[in-house]
Amino acid sequence: MHVQHCIVSAPGKAILHGEHAVVHGKVALAVSLNLRTYLELKATSTGKVSIDLPNIDTSLSWDVSELKLLVSDSFAKPEETKQLDAELLRRLREFVGIADGNLDTRGMATLAFLYIYLSSFGSGELPSLSVSVWSELPTGAGLGSSAAYSVCLAAALLTASGAIPAPLKHSVGTSRWCQEDMELINSWAFQGETIIHGNPSGVDNAVGTWGGMLRFLSGKILPLSRVPLLRILLTNTNVARSTKVLVAGVKDKRNKFPSIINPVLDSVDAISCTCEKTLAEMTSEPITSEHYNVLEELIDINQSQLNVMGVGTPVSGHPLTGAGGGGCGITLLRPETEPSVVESTVQDLRDCGYECWETSIGGPGVQQHHPSSVKPGVMEHLGAR
Amino acid sequence: MHVQHCIVSAPGKAILHGEHAVVHGKVALAVSLNLRTYLELKATSTGKVSIDLPNIDTSLSWDVSELKLLVSDSFAKPEETKQLDAELLRRLREFVGIADGNLDTRGMATLAFLYIYLSSFGSGELPSLSVSVWSELPTGAGLGSSAAYSVCLAAALLTASGAIPAPLKHSVGTSRWCQEDMELINSWAFQGETIIHGNPSGVDNAVGTWGGMLRFLSGKILPLSRVPLLRILLTNTNVARSTKVLVAGVKDKRNKFPSIINPVLDSVDAISCTCEKTLAEMTSEPITSEHYNVLEELIDINQSQLNVMGVGTPVSGHPLTGAGGGGCGITLLRPETEPSVVESTVQDLRDCGYECWETSIGGPGVQQHHPSSVKPGVMEHLGAR
Repeated sequence: MHVQHCIVSAPGKAILHGEHAVVHGKVALAVSLNLRTYLELKATSTGKVSIDLPNIDTSLSWDVSELKLLVSDSFAKPEETKQLDAELLRRLREFVGIADGNLDTRGMATLAFLYIYLSSFGSGELPSLSVSVWSELPTGAGLGSSAAYSVCLAAALLTASGAIPAPLKHSVGTSRWCQEDMELINSWAFQGETIIHGNPSGVDNAVGTWGGMLRFLSGKILPLSRVPLLRILLTNTNVARSTKVLVAGVKDKRNKFPSIINPVLDSVDAISCTCEKTLAEMTSEPITSEHYNVLEELIDINQSQLNVMGVGTPVSGHPLTGAGGGGCGITLLRPETEPSVVESTVQDLRDCGYECWETSIGGPGVQQHHPSSVKPGVMEHLGAR
Repeated sequence: MHVQHCIVSAPGKAILHGEHAVVHGKVALAVSLNLRTYLELKATSTGKVSIDLPNIDTSLSWDVSELKLLVSDSFAKPEETKQLDAELLRRLREFVGIADGNLDTRGMATLAFLYIYLSSFGSGELPSLSVSVWSELPTGAGLGSSAAYSVCLAAALLTASGAIPAPLKHSVGTSRWCQEDMELINSWAFQGETIIHGNPSGVDNAVGTWGGMLRFLSGKILPLSRVPLLRILLTNTNVARSTKVLVAGVKDKRNKFPSIINPVLDSVDAISCTCEKTLAEMTSEPITSEHYNVLEELIDINQSQLNVMGVGTPVSGHPLTGAGGGGCGITLLRPETEPSVVESTVQDLRDCGYECWETSIGGPGVQQHHPSSVKPGVMEHLGAR
């Protein structure tokens, strides 16, 4: 079987509002972050399946013939499978030698790749192919890098296997899949996230797939139809953080001071709802500077509420995304902001020892790219090995 | 008429919780601050009434005979007067040459002194006397310095006129007036505050009179019976602040984002109530470090809520009293904190350019002192001229 060459990309995610409050049944707004993960899939004739992950210095390959032994005869087609196949995962762990409970990044990335590869092709012939993945996203910063990886794997492998058609019909440009196909991509990306994280919320892979913005409430994910694209500066403070510890801290505080913290959660819920309403207005009426004023005020208020909950950042003026307590911060850039002002701000932040990117939120989800339409430099990273 | 020599003092005040929220019908907790204002009243035979205010370089005197002309024949006794006598105030303004609307500190201090002097003695003979007032409190920092001044004036002049008896029965020590006499002091101090501020809440003079802590809700002031004395560091950031502008800012924010700010006000209300409950516990059961943990957490949460309302401080780690937006901050000191730690913290803060005092909150209100019982240095300040 000879597969089609394809290049796909998926965005990262940021939590704009509702981080932590979402754990307590309040609305959170997750938004796509246009720092993207790119994947190139190439047919090979080596009889091997290989993966290159230059960001984490990983390059591995396996014989197709050995992988075949892991697949049972009664393997379902990927469009018919919704549940994680625990038996397949167990066999894969044994095959690559990763103990259950080991959460090493390389191991998890390998397992997710081989699992989606086998699931995509296992009901037919296993092809010889190579996959290379490179990401603009920092890992472990709460920016959905593992979900963007899983979404790319699902999109490329499902397309290569013919489970979904390639959306790119011309020899230039960028295309997206239809709704139904994106749902399949999302459900396989969720399985990848489950392998990597154990018990993911599904928010990160949904943002990676659909892009734009989505509302998350009590486990239900609702993509929002009308969202403007907003320029931002993203700052990574590189402050060490443990989401688990922070979430537990908020719970403890709520148990200790319910009459104080419950209203805070209500306030955060209202921040998310006000933000959603404002963003919708920005797509239906002329955008004014007052829209930006409101968005900035909401970010400031939300940041202070994270401080109330004891999970804010020690870095003033740079509101956080992710689970707070460090991590990354978002600064809105207005359309009229001069490039020189942006540059000097970026420089100031870098001088403080932070990583800083000029990017955007609210952009598209998973896409297929013609090689000529991938932004400069990405192909070099993908073909680095 | 020859008046008795007397020395009195009154504390400043800090708002522990509920600043701003109190404007919106929520509970505030005001607490006495043991930076005190001292007043010495001496009989003289000069036929003059004089006042020395070394803190603001003011030293003035008037002939008793001229002051007599301001008093009408039908002058009521001070214990029978509850309302400000607008006609007397008008005549005093004319006499000392201060236009209505002029809020100059010296002018206001002069008016309040002469008003309470005439009101205390006007129904009888006007005595020749000198009053000297010196304060440990910085002025204009939201620490109730004008109220402490008014309380001292009322206590000393009402005692000197015989409207209330001197509580100090022995030739040593410190004494307080009975409840009924303190009510009279408080009502005259309120009139002094009205002269100085126009429309005071009455909280500052109540704290200066009763000391300890009081609960303020919808214009009602309730002194709390059980309050521990707590050591603190008070930091004056010297950041310029306009209470009026800050209060208006919170109102605007509430009007703009009611669903976000209303829960914040509820949360602040709960902070005050939780603090009150914790302080009461500290007087009825053994004080533990957990009590201090809770008090510190409440201060931190309250500070973050001031930030949510947009009236916090730019100085991290130093929660504010006063109306926020600068002003003074309170840091609790635990009983076990080593003096060397306190000293080095004070030094650090001073190195940052802040004024810093080691003092206490929750201490006694207005007191009469025997000269031998006034702390060292105070008599020198009072007698400096």
